[in-house]
Amino acid sequence: MPALVFDGRAVNLQKDREPAPRGPGEARIRLRLAGVCSTDLELAKGYLGFRGVLGHEFVGDVVECSDPALLGARVVGGINCACLACDRCSQGLERHCRARTVLGIAGRDGVFQDSFTLPERNLVRVPDRVPDELAVFAEPLAAATRILEQVDLLPWQRVAVLGDGKLGILCALVLAERAHSVTLVGRHPGRVRFPIAVQEVPAESLDPRERFDVVIEATGSRDGLAAALRLVNPLGAVVLKTTCAAPHEIDLAPVVIDEVRVIGSRCGDLNEAIKRLEAGGLPLQQLVAARFPLADGTAALARAGEPGVLKVLIEGSRS
Amino acid sequence: MPALVFDGRAVNLQKDREPAPRGPGEARIRLRLAGVCSTDLELAKGYLGFRGVLGHEFVGDVVECSDPALLGARVVGGINCACLACDRCSQGLERHCRARTVLGIAGRDGVFQDSFTLPERNLVRVPDRVPDELAVFAEPLAAATRILEQVDLLPWQRVAVLGDGKLGILCALVLAERAHSVTLVGRHPGRVRFPIAVQEVPAESLDPRERFDVVIEATGSRDGLAAALRLVNPLGAVVLKTTCAAPHEIDLAPVVIDEVRVIGSRCGDLNEAIKRLEAGGLPLQQLVAARFPLADGTAALARAGEPGVLKVLIEGSRS
Repeated sequence: MPALVFDGRAVNLQKDREPAPRGPGEARIRLRLAGVCSTDLELAKGYLGFRGVLGHEFVGDVVECSDPALLGARVVGGINCACLACDRCSQGLERHCRARTVLGIAGRDGVFQDSFTLPERNLVRVPDRVPDELAVFAEPLAAATRILEQVDLLPWQRVAVLGDGKLGILCALVLAERAHSVTLVGRHPGRVRFPIAVQEVPAESLDPRERFDVVIEATGSRDGLAAALRLVNPLGAVVLKTTCAAPHEIDLAPVVIDEVRVIGSRCGDLNEAIKRLEAGGLPLQQLVAARFPLADGTAALARAGEPGVLKVLIEGSRS
Repeated sequence: MPALVFDGRAVNLQKDREPAPRGPGEARIRLRLAGVCSTDLELAKGYLGFRGVLGHEFVGDVVECSDPALLGARVVGGINCACLACDRCSQGLERHCRARTVLGIAGRDGVFQDSFTLPERNLVRVPDRVPDELAVFAEPLAAATRILEQVDLLPWQRVAVLGDGKLGILCALVLAERAHSVTLVGRHPGRVRFPIAVQEVPAESLDPRERFDVVIEATGSRDGLAAALRLVNPLGAVVLKTTCAAPHEIDLAPVVIDEVRVIGSRCGDLNEAIKRLEAGGLPLQQLVAARFPLADGTAALARAGEPGVLKVLIEGSRS
């Protein structure tokens, strides 16, 4: 079975990788469509020390499972696989389970292969009216909606999103649901037609005196937090979406003096994301830069790593 | 008039410093008692580039003012002097005024002198039953109570305070009002008799597997935030009280992965602090390490800078 594997040095297509056995309570899912995330590219540089099949954004079909009602369902899935036994799981913090594996990120093969396994409880059915090309965005869209759970955003608050990559664009789209004004600061304006609440501003054109109540740091760069702290109002919030692969030097005195909140933000609620996709109106298909069959997976990753390229999709045999 | 002045190189007692003229809406206050804060010691090393009379924790008597009802009142005072004209002031963010001066910290002579000026609107009367020795703690106590406005602390949440200096002790005392368990981590246990909710743990004895829902960083050290991030639970809060004088290297990936909130915290509500002092029960007099007359102010600062020394007080001519 073909699989896109990182062995610690490089990503290669293994033609005959043995699929992981299906554990108790797990389903086997055959890939329809997968998305390449910047985290995949970081993992392929050694981030988090992951080894195995990459990929965690997917839509697929359940081909084996213990719950008969689930068989054949078209699903997306939460990437955090909880032990359900540790103290954090017992407190309801399953996404932060102490012994978790994370699909294609930590201790569990990912979705860039013909089929893969996930706990059945992680799966969310995709309504018929949501095509694969939208459903594949459920995971990063959920990560964007997570911000609305963490920050009590008021309509008149000024919002900036730093970084107009895939995740930054999704954040801007979601925040524009609630805020009247979202400024998306990046290097590649003009790739997406946004709702009127979103104004794109090239990073070099941003007035350095501009200040925002909420700043989303989605640059993927280690300089992003310092830039966000320069832009945020006193008592404002900086939401950190970038996990930088290395420690870096920063002056945090402004956080104290201006009483800023810096809020780490990771995965969100897939059900929320699916509701948004079903409601329609998000211009996500404009984000798709290219599609590759799984057999050309290494080319897909190379393309995704080029500057300014948005979402690259990888097609399974079912797509 | 004697005053303790930092000239950019050293702190000296100037015997005949001309007092600042009283501006519109300002009162002149004669010092009864002042407290030395760690920030004063940082300023005396060049932090924030301040030049002038140090000191911002005080209780004193109003000796000149425009409001006749205020004349002769014994008062404490908020340190942030707002312009009342800028956009932030018009939004009610007067403590974060863009053009503010800060008593003994930025653009305004402080309280280590015979008399000084502050806007009348900054002053809070001290009830008769609160002696000078307690009232002088109003400003740092308000800074500690600020945490309760910023973190929605639940009684069963586990709280750690890193740093058992003056501010750390005040934070532990205030947080113990609401949380059943506050762990104070420091180098000098045993100096204060705490309420039973506060357990002192020497830093070297803390089990590295311990985790807390809320961690207050009050070490005054640039390594404090990294230590706090190691101790905080996923979805927990780290409250930053230390303004480190220099940028430093830190790995913020755990903030994102564990979805931690890092919250800068500075000044609080003096009325809240005075209410607590009036209610009694806080063992603040145990924090007083020494008292010096203003004429021995340089000795007071030297003493305050010795390791393990808690609050050093400076007596005005009215004390």
